[in-house]
Amino acid sequence: MNHKHGAILVLSGPSGAGKSSIINEIIYDIGDCYFSISTTTRPIREGETDGIHYHFVDEEEFQRDIEEDLFLEYAFVHGNYYGTSIKPVRKALREGKLVVFDIDVQGNTVVNTRLGDITTSVFISPPTLSELKRRLEKRQTDSQEVIERRVKMAKKEIQRITEYDYIVVNDKLDDAANTLRLIAKAARLKVSHTDINEFVQEWEDIEQ
Amino acid sequence: MNHKHGAILVLSGPSGAGKSSIINEIIYDIGDCYFSISTTTRPIREGETDGIHYHFVDEEEFQRDIEEDLFLEYAFVHGNYYGTSIKPVRKALREGKLVVFDIDVQGNTVVNTRLGDITTSVFISPPTLSELKRRLEKRQTDSQEVIERRVKMAKKEIQRITEYDYIVVNDKLDDAANTLRLIAKAARLKVSHTDINEFVQEWEDIEQ
Repeated sequence: MNHKHGAILVLSGPSGAGKSSIINEIIYDIGDCYFSISTTTRPIREGETDGIHYHFVDEEEFQRDIEEDLFLEYAFVHGNYYGTSIKPVRKALREGKLVVFDIDVQGNTVVNTRLGDITTSVFISPPTLSELKRRLEKRQTDSQEVIERRVKMAKKEIQRITEYDYIVVNDKLDDAANTLRLIAKAARLKVSHTDINEFVQEWEDIEQ
Repeated sequence: MNHKHGAILVLSGPSGAGKSSIINEIIYDIGDCYFSISTTTRPIREGETDGIHYHFVDEEEFQRDIEEDLFLEYAFVHGNYYGTSIKPVRKALREGKLVVFDIDVQGNTVVNTRLGDITTSVFISPPTLSELKRRLEKRQTDSQEVIERRVKMAKKEIQRITEYDYIVVNDKLDDAANTLRLIAKAARLKVSHTDINEFVQEWEDIEQ
């Protein structure tokens, strides 16, 4: 069956689980995809570029987009807004791309409710909580307070991992990347209910 | 994460869709798996072997097993009982195998209700209804009456294909086999909620 309307791969997991490293490993293998860039009100950090890491906007603009229903999902996390603008996602899906989301557990719930038929969700987990702490401390980008907050958040998120289709434990990067590569390829095979209904109609029409 | 308890791959699709041919193409690639053999009250056909194609039993025995809750799912189709005995499935899952079911839409609903966390379901469809008819007539194993009944059944089943995770249209055997191979590999990565809960517990315990 054709995948006219693309498919969605949701990646969640605490900061420090190694999502970016895994994605970098497989990005050239999973073919024609669109990495959804979130919109946020949090201040830009050193080394970040507007339009690449995030779309950085002020709170007024974010609130206006909420009112105009321009977000597929949004959340208020750690004192800042984060959201997924719906327009570029629709465009990429129309072009038949695999749309990859890096969003949290709440975001996954919303995407699954709205576009569950074409969505495959993966939770990327560090092997243990203490390993997560170690990784966050090692990368020296966050204050001790932020690290504590992230760890607390991770403890909360991990309670809801049964809501995901797959769990990838990032113990060895190569293994985790191989697993995600396979899941991403399978994710592309999901077809929307709209496409299925069209197929069923054609399937019977031809007989007449 | 370990896959201590195995996973399930449900294959549905009308007789004549080419399920057996596709499975024969990929059986050696998908590794350690257990093909669930259905139990049935229908008469054994020429060329069939008891314990390989089906477990052939009489209606009395089937009824007794229903009463003792020994079926994962069962159905009365085309005047005969068909069911999946639960014991060999449990054993295969405990051994970490991928259990492959060849069951119908109703059976898929039951398996998904009872073991949805470790189940991936695939509907294998012939490209069109007229192609299905052509294939059934060509293989010359069924009477015209049986073919009519199968076609009628296929029309009903296809209305419910949105209940499946994946649709594989068997137009070219090689393409269909490649697609199913990929889905089967990904199916193996699903982990049970029991395993996930154990993982979460260990994940936090280690920190203490």
